[in-house]
Order: sequence, then C-alpha cells, then structure tokens
Amino acid sequence: MAIEAKFSKLGADDAPGQEVRQNAKDVELLLRGDTVPGRKVDFSHGDVDAHEPTPGAFDLFTTGVERGGCQAYTEYRGNLDIRALIAPRLADFTGAPVDADDGLIITPGTQGALFLAVASTVDQGDKVAIVQPDYFANRKLVEFFGGVMVPVQMRYDQSPEGEAGLDLDELEDAFKAGARVFLFSNPNNPTGVVYSAEEISRIAALGEKYGATVIVDQLYSRLRYTGASYTHFRAQAVNPENVITIMGPSKTESLSGYRLGVAFGSARIIARMEKLQAIVSLRAAGYSQAVLRGWFDEPAAWMEERIRKHQAIRDGLVDALRGIEGAFVRPSMAGSYLFPRLPDLSVSHSDFVKILRLQAGVIVTPGTEFSPHTANSVRLNFSQDHAAAVAAVERMAVLVERYRT
Amino acid sequence: MAIEAKFSKLGADDAPGQEVRQNAKDVELLLRGDTVPGRKVDFSHGDVDAHEPTPGAFDLFTTGVERGGCQAYTEYRGNLDIRALIAPRLADFTGAPVDADDGLIITPGTQGALFLAVASTVDQGDKVAIVQPDYFANRKLVEFFGGVMVPVQMRYDQSPEGEAGLDLDELEDAFKAGARVFLFSNPNNPTGVVYSAEEISRIAALGEKYGATVIVDQLYSRLRYTGASYTHFRAQAVNPENVITIMGPSKTESLSGYRLGVAFGSARIIARMEKLQAIVSLRAAGYSQAVLRGWFDEPAAWMEERIRKHQAIRDGLVDALRGIEGAFVRPSMAGSYLFPRLPDLSVSHSDFVKILRLQAGVIVTPGTEFSPHTANSVRLNFSQDHAAAVAAVERMAVLVERYRT
Repeated sequence: MAIEAKFSKLGADDAPGQEVRQNAKDVELLLRGDTVPGRKVDFSHGDVDAHEPTPGAFDLFTTGVERGGCQAYTEYRGNLDIRALIAPRLADFTGAPVDADDGLIITPGTQGALFLAVASTVDQGDKVAIVQPDYFANRKLVEFFGGVMVPVQMRYDQSPEGEAGLDLDELEDAFKAGARVFLFSNPNNPTGVVYSAEEISRIAALGEKYGATVIVDQLYSRLRYTGASYTHFRAQAVNPENVITIMGPSKTESLSGYRLGVAFGSARIIARMEKLQAIVSLRAAGYSQAVLRGWFDEPAAWMEERIRKHQAIRDGLVDALRGIEGAFVRPSMAGSYLFPRLPDLSVSHSDFVKILRLQAGVIVTPGTEFSPHTANSVRLNFSQDHAAAVAAVERMAVLVERYRT
Repeated sequence: MAIEAKFSKLGADDAPGQEVRQNAKDVELLLRGDTVPGRKVDFSHGDVDAHEPTPGAFDLFTTGVERGGCQAYTEYRGNLDIRALIAPRLADFTGAPVDADDGLIITPGTQGALFLAVASTVDQGDKVAIVQPDYFANRKLVEFFGGVMVPVQMRYDQSPEGEAGLDLDELEDAFKAGARVFLFSNPNNPTGVVYSAEEISRIAALGEKYGATVIVDQLYSRLRYTGASYTHFRAQAVNPENVITIMGPSKTESLSGYRLGVAFGSARIIARMEKLQAIVSLRAAGYSQAVLRGWFDEPAAWMEERIRKHQAIRDGLVDALRGIEGAFVRPSMAGSYLFPRLPDLSVSHSDFVKILRLQAGVIVTPGTEFSPHTANSVRLNFSQDHAAAVAAVERMAVLVERYRT
C-alpha cells in the first residue's frame, strides 16, 4: 500500500524527544561496564527551566485570555492587531518590508510554518533542493508531499570561518535538474554555521536566474555570537514573491510551550498557507498568539545576557569535546546547536546514542537525522544548565573511551 | 500547475471567521433599504464571552507553565501523564477501552485530529465516503490528499425524530464502489441531528463487511438536549483497529482559545498520526495540554447549566426561524448548530449571507460549505448571548422579507 510506504519513511523514533518510545532491549547486549552517574541532560531540545521564557510572556498570555472571544477566535492567519504590531519589527530586523495584511501568517510553531510553506510550494514529483546536513523535517516534508529531494552538500567541516561551505555548484546543478524550491536553515541546524554575505548573495542570484522559490528558516537568527555577521536572504535583490522567511519566538526566547511561529514574505504563498491552515489546525492557539506582542520588544539587557550565557556554554562544551581524541567540532556562530563528529567506535554510532542515554543519562540526536553522510555526528542543543551540560559531555567522553575501536 | 488547482479548490473565503477578508464591493449594488440596527452577532462560531470557559481551566494552564520544560516539551502525541488521566474518562464516556500509551493522541484542536486522521488513511485516488451535509473540512481534507469523495446523502429534513436520515443504501454503494474510509460527524455538523442506535449499528455492520476505516467526529457529543439518545460508534461490534474517534474540549467547554483535541482508538492509525504531527506542528501547545486535566471532570451542575442554557437559546431561535414563512428548521438534538433553510429570495443565498452581514450585523456560514445541495440553508452556531441571538435572527427575518422573491 502506498500510504504505508509513505508513513514508513516518516520515521519519528529517532526524532528529538521521542526516545521514551524506543525499545532499548537490542542495545542492552552491547553494554560494557557500569553507568556513569550524573544529572540527566536532554540535549535533544533546550531546557526552558535553565533559560526561562521572556519576562512578561505569561502576563501577555493572561491578557489574551481576559480579552476573551476575539483572542480565542482569530483569522486563520492570526489576529490582525498582533500582525500589525510585529510586521514592522520583523521588517526592521530583516531589512525588507513586511505586509501585515497579506504578507504574514502566525502558525503553531515554526514547524507549522515549515509544513504549510512546503505544502504550498511542493507537489507530487517536484524537485526540491535540500542542504545536507540540515533540519531533519525538511527532507521529511518534501517526501511527504511526494516531492523529490535533490541534495546539496554543505561542507561546514572544511569551509573557512564566516562561511557555511554550501556547494554552490551543486545548488546550480539542482536548479538545472529542475528544482524550483530551495529550503534551508540559516543559521544552519544542526551545525550552527551562518552563511556568509557572499553565499547568501550567490544563492539569491541563482534563485533569481532559475525563478526558484526560496524558503529560509531563520529560527535562530537572533541568537548570534561574537564575530557572527548575518545576512538576511529576503533583503537581497530577489523577487519578494518568491521568498518565504520563517521565524518564531520559541527558541531564543524559550517560548516553545506556547507553540508560535510566523512566516512572512510572498503574499501568494501565504494565501495558500492560510487556506491550508484552515484545515490543518485552524490557527495558532488563540490565547498564545497574544504572547507575540512582546516579541522583538524584550529588554536589550535581557537579550544580551541570554546570548552571553549561551556563548559561555558553547565555549565550555567545545573545550570538553576537543578533549576527545579524534573528535571534530566547529563552534557554532549562532543558535544553540553543536554538531560534533565522534571518532570511530566499536559499536555503531546509532547504538552509541542509545548507550549514552542508558549509561550516562545523556540524550543527543543522531546525525543520520540530518544527512546520510553525518552518521558519526550527534547534535547537542546546548541551551541547558551550564554546569550540567559540561558534566554531561564529560560523561560522553568517558563512554567514547570505553567504546573506542 | 497542479498545485494551483489543488489550492484553488481549498477556498477559505466563506469559511467561518474569514469574512473580514472578503471584498464586499460586488454585493453593495444589490442592497435595498437601510441597515437594521442591533448588536452584531457572529454565528460563525460560538461566543466564549457569553459562555465562559470551564472553571479552573486557566489555573490548570498556569500550573502547566509553572511545571516548565516537561510541560513545554512533550512527546509528539502529548504528555503521558495527561493521556493516562483522560484515557479512562474517555473510555467511560464512550463505553469502550482507551489505551493511554498507544491508542490516544493529543492534537492542536479537533481540526488537527481530523487532518492527521485523514492524512493517515487517505492516499492519492482513494475513495472516501462523505456525508452531505457534513462539516466542510471533511471534503476539503479528502480532496487535499488527492482522495475522491463519494457523497452519501443524509435526509435530515425528511427523517423521523431520533434519526439522522443517512441513506444507508448509498453508504453501501460507496463501499461497493471501493470506498474504504467513512468520515462523519455525530452529532452532525451543521444540522445538529444525532444518529439513531439503529443507524450507528448498521453503519458499523457495513464498515465491518467492507473492512472500512471509520473516523467519527464526536466534537459535540457532550452537549445533548432533552430527548436525545446517543450511541457511540466505537462501542459497537467493530474491529477497534478500524475506528478513530475525535473529540475535544474546545466547544461545549468553551476552551477553543487553547486549541486542544484528541483522537483515540486504532493504535496503527494513531502511530501514523504521531509521525505526521512531528512534521506538521510537533505537538499541541505544551502548556495548553495541561488544561486537559480538567476535562470530563467539570462540576456536574456546571455542565447541566451549560446544556440548559443552550437548549433555551435553541428553542428561542427555532421559534424565531419558524416565524419566517417558507423557512424550514429542524431543532438540533445536540451541539450548538441550527441549519435553517430559507425561502426563495430575489438575490442568491450566497449574496444574502453577505447582505446579512452588511445590513444587519449578522454573520452566518453559507450552506454551500456543507453540501452542494444545501445552498439555500445557512448555519448558525447558537452558542451566543441568548437575547442578542434572538434579536439577530429577528433582523434576519426582516431582511428575508425585504429580499423575498
């Protein structure tokens, strides 16, 4: 049955947070030695207890509940007053206009925005250029809608500082082969690299040349570290009707529990996204939408402190990872991910991920979720308690030694 | 382009709540006389200000926020503690077991559950039996996934009290023609009729005979009026792996602003739904999920009062509608919808719906959303302020006279 094949491709067992549903029996036979004690750290997502939500978020929610019906039931694309409030802030941030009426939709998380954007641009048999490695859902979304993924390599482990390392020739080949949609995250998830101005401008030129639609997931673009220079794709010389930008207050701002995201840009695509949202989930939770009133309006000192703390954790983890012989890690320039490559082990890296959870209480996301070529890497969301995160990576180092070839 | 055709079918302009995006210019030429003054009533959805959320809902939300990370990030199918809490309540209510581990998923609204259930059972070219009239998204969902709708008529305007009037021969014909999925709402949206025990048992027998999957949307099944007898489909003698039941606390309980729904039953289908939820929106908003702790645990007197008030509004509106010569209305036995048929008018009924909004401040949903055969009907969600709703229907009656043939 075709539908069975479709869903068997949609594996979610290795997806972040789904470890609780795994059967660990097959790994138990491989275990060596005792557990390495320490506080459990779940690197599959950020710890919103260690890095609390934006101040005032809950009060905005409460005001939304008090507002009653008009906040519970909004247009499918979200409450107009809120769209009007955040559109100029997003325009300021990205350096290009945002039309609150027709060019912006509020979605249930950035995942919701990604789903709607891909569904609105990719049909059965359509070719879509996808970066490897990149956010695992990108590939799954394309496949779910019957699209054909055309992989484009990003050599983040070889490119100079300040560059992501996207193979632009491969991208052009993908367009030449018929791809008319290019979907990528910037900063890249899982590596935390940021595309250079030159890379963004060349992607834009290629997109224009082939009339492609470009969907840019900028979820982490506010959390940038010392030395990072960021170029917004939508501010390039491109046809704005061919660009969708996706962001959300869920990560940097620790507001994931409210499930909010936005997509902005092309009015034509956003009109489709709204039609689809009408049958997918109607709208982002009405009361939650009210929390967006505080977005891009956080106290400057609060945001600086959040970035400073994350940079310190990043540095601590990079040091610990560099202590593992044969491991490779590139410090992320933005976002809260590290994507270290581990040395060769006597067990498969996929089993090692399960062993890490069972013996060290350390949960990471396997590299195969992001690219078939990164099986020996693991993704760590380092938005964690600083000391606990460093201790967890130290436990990981102990287990690497124990299972080393 | 195929994708353009797909989205042009997905019209949302006439969908409830989307009136703000309509261009009314074309209707202005048809207007006769002055506006009929009165308090605006939006019958396209319930008024959660007139009928407030379940007591304690906001406190449960607050506790969820305080719980932090473990409530913000849950399994994609929802927090296990909450599933374990509500599964036995749903089993009690529906008269058949619910497996909290594998047989229940929490979704962003019942719309989210419907989307996932249809996506998990309907593939390109699959035939799906759909009732006419029924909830408008049912048809749109089938078409979006490339399925072929096989209509089955429900003659609610001719059937005796206590019966919905589904044409069971047509349903069997649909199965004979190859339909392997049957999707219907009970109580029916938009008519408010409830299927009799005999109808449910015959649908179950037909479903079994043809090995069909049955998706039952029971969103309004708690709001039942004097004399209504309700039969839960999932408690029939059917293979439980072929049945998905959908409910949610959004309507009767006025909790729409939290966007919550559940689907329960077939473990096989729910496993697919979870895989898909992982790329559609990850999960129902984490903090919102906490509100489900109070579901099916409301004070009995509160629920009785809610039902009593709605029954009184229903009766008031039925009286007012029966005062319109040539109109037909069947009192709903459950839920908060009425679906009156209006007499012939000198304008199209679709234009009349726009005129109603412009001249009387009365928003209703056009009958064409529910069936091509009910163009002269309109749907009213009567979960409104009692006096304002009756006054709004009286204004509608004034305009019917003004535009009568």
